Amino acid sequence: MSVSVSHDEFRRRLDLTAQGVEDLLDRLLEPDPLPGEIIRPGRLLEAMRYAMLGGGKRLRPHLVVEAARLFGREDQGVLRAAAAIECVHGYSLVHDDLPAMDDDELRRGKPTVHRAFDEATAILAGDALITLAFDMLADEATDPDPAVRIALTLSLARSSGIGGMAGGQMLDLEAEGRFASHGRPLRGDEADTLRLQAMKTGAILVACLEMGAIVGRADDEAKRALSAYGRAIGQAFQIADDLLDAEGEAGLVGKATGKDAARGKATLVSLLGIETARARLSRLVDEAQGALQPFGPRADTLRETASFVAARRS
Amino acid sequence: MSVSVSHDEFRRRLDLTAQGVEDLLDRLLEPDPLPGEIIRPGRLLEAMRYAMLGGGKRLRPHLVVEAARLFGREDQGVLRAAAAIECVHGYSLVHDDLPAMDDDELRRGKPTVHRAFDEATAILAGDALITLAFDMLADEATDPDPAVRIALTLSLARSSGIGGMAGGQMLDLEAEGRFASHGRPLRGDEADTLRLQAMKTGAILVACLEMGAIVGRADDEAKRALSAYGRAIGQAFQIADDLLDAEGEAGLVGKATGKDAARGKATLVSLLGIETARARLSRLVDEAQGALQPFGPRADTLRETASFVAARRS
Repeated sequence: MSVSVSHDEFRRRLDLTAQGVEDLLDRLLEPDPLPGEIIRPGRLLEAMRYAMLGGGKRLRPHLVVEAARLFGREDQGVLRAAAAIECVHGYSLVHDDLPAMDDDELRRGKPTVHRAFDEATAILAGDALITLAFDMLADEATDPDPAVRIALTLSLARSSGIGGMAGGQMLDLEAEGRFASHGRPLRGDEADTLRLQAMKTGAILVACLEMGAIVGRADDEAKRALSAYGRAIGQAFQIADDLLDAEGEAGLVGKATGKDAARGKATLVSLLGIETARARLSRLVDEAQGALQPFGPRADTLRETASFVAARRS
Repeated sequence: MSVSVSHDEFRRRLDLTAQGVEDLLDRLLEPDPLPGEIIRPGRLLEAMRYAMLGGGKRLRPHLVVEAARLFGREDQGVLRAAAAIECVHGYSLVHDDLPAMDDDELRRGKPTVHRAFDEATAILAGDALITLAFDMLADEATDPDPAVRIALTLSLARSSGIGGMAGGQMLDLEAEGRFASHGRPLRGDEADTLRLQAMKTGAILVACLEMGAIVGRADDEAKRALSAYGRAIGQAFQIADDLLDAEGEAGLVGKATGKDAARGKATLVSLLGIETARARLSRLVDEAQGALQPFGPRADTLRETASFVAARRS
């Protein structure tokens, strides 16, 4: 499929949303308590700011914003929904990095939250970020219609809980053989691996598109098209990530690489081989772009996004 | 103030709600995924069930249910709101017990979740319980009116995030001197201690009453009265807890006692002395019961609840 929007325009949109999310989170993570709050303890606030500000492509917010824009909606409310998902993504990084989980010391080239602060603060910062995400969605500044706000809340909760992201992290720890006798990795087959990835990273990406559709008052057909796009880029994202882990250099990636192999974890790359994985990645990009057909050229930024997700190098 | 409802009737109401919450959580924490979920990993589900089922007075759900009943509302929707708060309370216990936080091995006489499972599973179970709480509130089974569901969501988020419960746990760790040079406890004064407790345990108790009022479509005057009641029993609850820690026997309490003194933490009991703390506790019960004056005898169960909170022995 031809992509008519320039790569430069895509980058401009990506950067615009990243800046908007950065500014919004900077304002939301301020010392003044909101109505109903008592005070905001400084150390906890600093850890939340450290986790959320100053970095990241903000791919998830970009997906929310671009999905909503298909339906003509572009405002601070959309950005709030986008930033709420980013808070859930951010909490998952903080908790996944903990010594009891993946035990990572670096994230985006900086010490992880539990290294920069301490474990207790990192646990609490993650907890408070989940809670803040739902707070942001529930606030009327996100959308004047309570039915829209509650649909956003349900979408985020379902995609990030036991049946989505948190459950996926559990499966990932199990795949490392963490709880098996002798701690041997449980090398799953392709179906197991796809399901793990659909939960751990895919569900939230699909939710980004769904939430963009919700704030945009999309009809069911448009919602289905965006979900199909979301599932395809979710898989593409994961294959690109696995390729990066298998081939990347730590200095470029900003976090440790080669970890999957070291842990004996199955990935699509280890199951299919690098060349087959690359071919699958290319097919998924086509599939994602094809799913956007009903939107015509309005969806060109999302089409570029699919290519970007597949090509990403960090 | 005289309390006309019998203690037996109060116990009957408390037990009824506890049973209702137990049954509801047992049904919600089942292996079948909800729409929008993929699968529910068994180990994570078991840890959530272990954390949530088979114990506890269910004081917080009781407060939600009794507040809603003042306005004639008694149904499964109220119980869902009540169980959602219980999930947030439950997650806070799981995370607070972690080695990096309070490092507790016993909870209600059973091994804590990270002892019965492992730390990673305990962290994820807590995360998934927060998320489930918001999922439950957002589902239309809780209330047909989206505006009611979103008001519940906001109340729970504000009371349990950085400006409420999670922030209170942060202050509590700081009060132990965890982050001070030489790790000395920071002995706060009465105002500091009251604020810490208002955040760590009080905010959620006030939210219970607020959420009962929201599902009951209470007017502002009734909401104010219930909040005043909530603040008074919140303080009473904490003084009773501190007295229990100072005087209790571990076998009876089902968790370690004497921990506040061992950690050098300020409590109202250490600041005021046992006798003055007891007098304050008694005054707070009167204050709580007095706040219920607008509701007349309909609020007798909540009046008994205030006495129960002050007298609790476990």
